[in-house]
Amino acid sequence: MNQSKLSIVKIGGEILNNSEMKAGFLEHFSAMNGPRILIHGGGKQATTIASRMGVTTKMIEGRRITDADNLDIAIMVYGGLLNKKLVAELQASGCPACGVSGADGNAILATKRPSEPLDYGFAGDIEQVNPTFLELLLNAELIPVMCALTHDGKGQMLNTNADTIAAETAIAMSPFYETTLYYVFDKPGVLEEVTDLTSVVSELDPVRYRKMVKNKQIADGMIPKLDNGFYAKEHNVSGVQLGNAQMLTDTNQVATKIRL
Amino acid sequence: MNQSKLSIVKIGGEILNNSEMKAGFLEHFSAMNGPRILIHGGGKQATTIASRMGVTTKMIEGRRITDADNLDIAIMVYGGLLNKKLVAELQASGCPACGVSGADGNAILATKRPSEPLDYGFAGDIEQVNPTFLELLLNAELIPVMCALTHDGKGQMLNTNADTIAAETAIAMSPFYETTLYYVFDKPGVLEEVTDLTSVVSELDPVRYRKMVKNKQIADGMIPKLDNGFYAKEHNVSGVQLGNAQMLTDTNQVATKIRL
Repeated sequence: MNQSKLSIVKIGGEILNNSEMKAGFLEHFSAMNGPRILIHGGGKQATTIASRMGVTTKMIEGRRITDADNLDIAIMVYGGLLNKKLVAELQASGCPACGVSGADGNAILATKRPSEPLDYGFAGDIEQVNPTFLELLLNAELIPVMCALTHDGKGQMLNTNADTIAAETAIAMSPFYETTLYYVFDKPGVLEEVTDLTSVVSELDPVRYRKMVKNKQIADGMIPKLDNGFYAKEHNVSGVQLGNAQMLTDTNQVATKIRL
Repeated sequence: MNQSKLSIVKIGGEILNNSEMKAGFLEHFSAMNGPRILIHGGGKQATTIASRMGVTTKMIEGRRITDADNLDIAIMVYGGLLNKKLVAELQASGCPACGVSGADGNAILATKRPSEPLDYGFAGDIEQVNPTFLELLLNAELIPVMCALTHDGKGQMLNTNADTIAAETAIAMSPFYETTLYYVFDKPGVLEEVTDLTSVVSELDPVRYRKMVKNKQIADGMIPKLDNGFYAKEHNVSGVQLGNAQMLTDTNQVATKIRL
């Protein structure tokens, strides 16, 4: 089978929050060849807007609880502020982008997470990513720019982790494309020594991953990213890489590749 | 020439703000046949969010000034909160909707309004509505749901009046479709007597329009709507109608039709 290649690129809110990092990212992303999908987070920006609106952000066990007010803020910040500015900037960089929430074109159908044992509020667990709609855009040489929002098909928007959306989108597109999933963040990869940027682990397999988590070399936000990365790799996504934006254009750039 | 028909429907923020009116609108809109584009405003909701964020809304001569803070709010409210909720609700009503700001698919290119004689801030005057992108969606049987945002092609989002977007979109689509432009609001049409809902003017021509403005029978928000309606009609849009949501499904429903 000779499939065309598809790149799925996830960026965190920290890149959108820093104008220098954002400019660097746009430079590399716009220099990539072939069909691409971009997925972005934005939790920090949502927290900033929430605090300006006097809305508190509840966290349970390090996870954000999406009550009705926080859902509205997520819709405003992810679907509006960050998505539209990013799309406009991509257009200016020569990338024909098109913003996509999970409701647009029924791109991502989800169900509200059960309220037991913990009530996460309006958090959506993905049922199905719609490859037909994404292919419509890709075939027209558009670049879907997806945010961390899904819908339940019954009129309710839901908040869904962007790392998970990236993995599920990569899995859904893999029957049609040779798909590589890139998690772009502010480090050159998974680090053996957290403070040593030259200590990138170039290949990470499940045994080493578990060991590094046990040794606390991998913690916090890296864990859901890597769990999603391994999950994607286990579900026929051709390649999964973590690193900084340079890996998008330079195959010699050091980065962490996930192996099973 | 035997063209297919296209309906372009503009709704004001007052319909999105009232759950009963919104439900009624969704019922009529989802019962329409054939290709459709929906365009929505949302100025009141933007003002509410601005006040919750402690951002003041400056007005000069009754027109909103879009400074940087108010632009962010417009992007959040029009492009995010209202657009995504509406798209999700349309999906639930059986309408395969897809939200579109002017940046998405380069749908609407605009230029920032000159700062002389009055500086309106980040207000965009439309250069071009992109029929190719809208046709891509329509040909896939999707319903574009457009909000009051444009972009300048250089990375800047801009705020543009939704009535104007509706008229310019209708004009841009008219070479390809027999296009009818509907301005849906909370009255059954232009009223001869403002307080008498049975006094709908069924046909409005420029002479009568000018007379009614002179007599103050037409004022405020109705003037830009009607100016845009006449402008569309003068630029080859087949039909322009103003009235409540019932006119979308019932051809016998009283409404105001614009005649030249």
